[in-house]
Amino acid sequence: MSDRLFAAVLFIVLCGSFASARHSGRSPAQTTRAATSVRPLKAPANGTINVAFIISQDTEAIDLAGPWEVFQDVMFTPEGGPWRGEGEMVMPFNLYTVSDSLEPLAANGLILISSYTFDTAPKPQVIVIPAQGGRSAAQKAWLLANAKTADVTMSVCTGASMLAAYGLLDNQKATTHHMSLKKLQAQYPAVRFVSGARYVENDKISTAGGLTSGIDLALHVVERYYGRETAQNTADFLKYRGELWKVPQFAELREVAANK
Amino acid sequence: MSDRLFAAVLFIVLCGSFASARHSGRSPAQTTRAATSVRPLKAPANGTINVAFIISQDTEAIDLAGPWEVFQDVMFTPEGGPWRGEGEMVMPFNLYTVSDSLEPLAANGLILISSYTFDTAPKPQVIVIPAQGGRSAAQKAWLLANAKTADVTMSVCTGASMLAAYGLLDNQKATTHHMSLKKLQAQYPAVRFVSGARYVENDKISTAGGLTSGIDLALHVVERYYGRETAQNTADFLKYRGELWKVPQFAELREVAANK
Repeated sequence: MSDRLFAAVLFIVLCGSFASARHSGRSPAQTTRAATSVRPLKAPANGTINVAFIISQDTEAIDLAGPWEVFQDVMFTPEGGPWRGEGEMVMPFNLYTVSDSLEPLAANGLILISSYTFDTAPKPQVIVIPAQGGRSAAQKAWLLANAKTADVTMSVCTGASMLAAYGLLDNQKATTHHMSLKKLQAQYPAVRFVSGARYVENDKISTAGGLTSGIDLALHVVERYYGRETAQNTADFLKYRGELWKVPQFAELREVAANK
Repeated sequence: MSDRLFAAVLFIVLCGSFASARHSGRSPAQTTRAATSVRPLKAPANGTINVAFIISQDTEAIDLAGPWEVFQDVMFTPEGGPWRGEGEMVMPFNLYTVSDSLEPLAANGLILISSYTFDTAPKPQVIVIPAQGGRSAAQKAWLLANAKTADVTMSVCTGASMLAAYGLLDNQKATTHHMSLKKLQAQYPAVRFVSGARYVENDKISTAGGLTSGIDLALHVVERYYGRETAQNTADFLKYRGELWKVPQFAELREVAANK
């Protein structure tokens, strides 16, 4: 299986077979191949893409702020061209946090307040799940309902354990922080955890490895909506020098042996 | 000037002349050369290094969370060896936020509450200044007093403008986000802004460039306290693939021409 995946990724990289050319009202043309084999995404007709970040106690700072900063820093001119630091600017992603309540949350020393509860949050096109400690019935119900209709639901680090706990990774490929792979594989045998990739994508559910790898997956989600050039412009604005968002596999993909 | 700086950095890189070997109670030996010419730092006798993050409205998410995650993820065994994910673990950095009040702050969509006010914050050994919008007399007084006694005061992105506004960068080398270099140079002519480096260090004041470069500067501050191996272990835990924290110069250093 890992050989086939590796060959498939190589094929995509070498052939550039996912070229596409999509225009939308204010978005630039998407003319470059996608980094992996998942489908490109189409921005909503109104031009705004809602991105909901689920938070709770012990939310990991960089898992939240990495993707947050990526989506926040996608900026166009009103005509859909790259914004160069001068003049009017359009930000297509609308970011907000969602949690059980609006009470302050202790997040490893940071104190966060959610923008919305699960009862009040706008419907998201993208859902981001940082590593965190909180689980609740409202969280589960909201995530199960909204992951169905969202374009992509992505976890960062051990945020994958929330997806796994709610069955959203059953029979799907996934990854998580390298120190948690074996443990989560043992806990959730229906999930196909792999090592060797910065992030792993299925059609609607994606999982990033540890911590900073959430930046790469978020950049790739930007690419799926707006193409390689826009994602590269965003990485440049962020001064992000990593290249693994383009080809996330850094070693042979290996299925993880459970270790209780 | 830029040629001399470039030659100096090259000299340091090529000669590895800053090898040192320092032991402290629970820290590993520091046996590798520092990335730049600034002096190594010594952890306090009680083993805990206070890191204060100044926050206010419009604090930039990754400027805060990047260094936060770096310092948080420095982990030793009780004997001072590298922690490998099992057993007891010691975290030498004690992180907290400090602001004018404990009221909720709107930070580009995130809502933060500070842990301390400027009246109540513990004395820091490290001060981190993310890009942010708030300026106040209490902030200025606290920063001027504490930067004197701290080991290092570091800004991320346009956080450098706070240091510059309070005179802390006068006659010092500095950098900031590439889109703000010329503007800040015009606004603060006493500062020697340069381009070409991921971060720029003086003896006690350091400035990182845009956004994710704060991760690199924080990793280097870890290196100054605990050596290259500990900083590399932290980068590995973070899954951070960047290498510029080791040699931050990526182009010829150039003094910035002011542009009003």
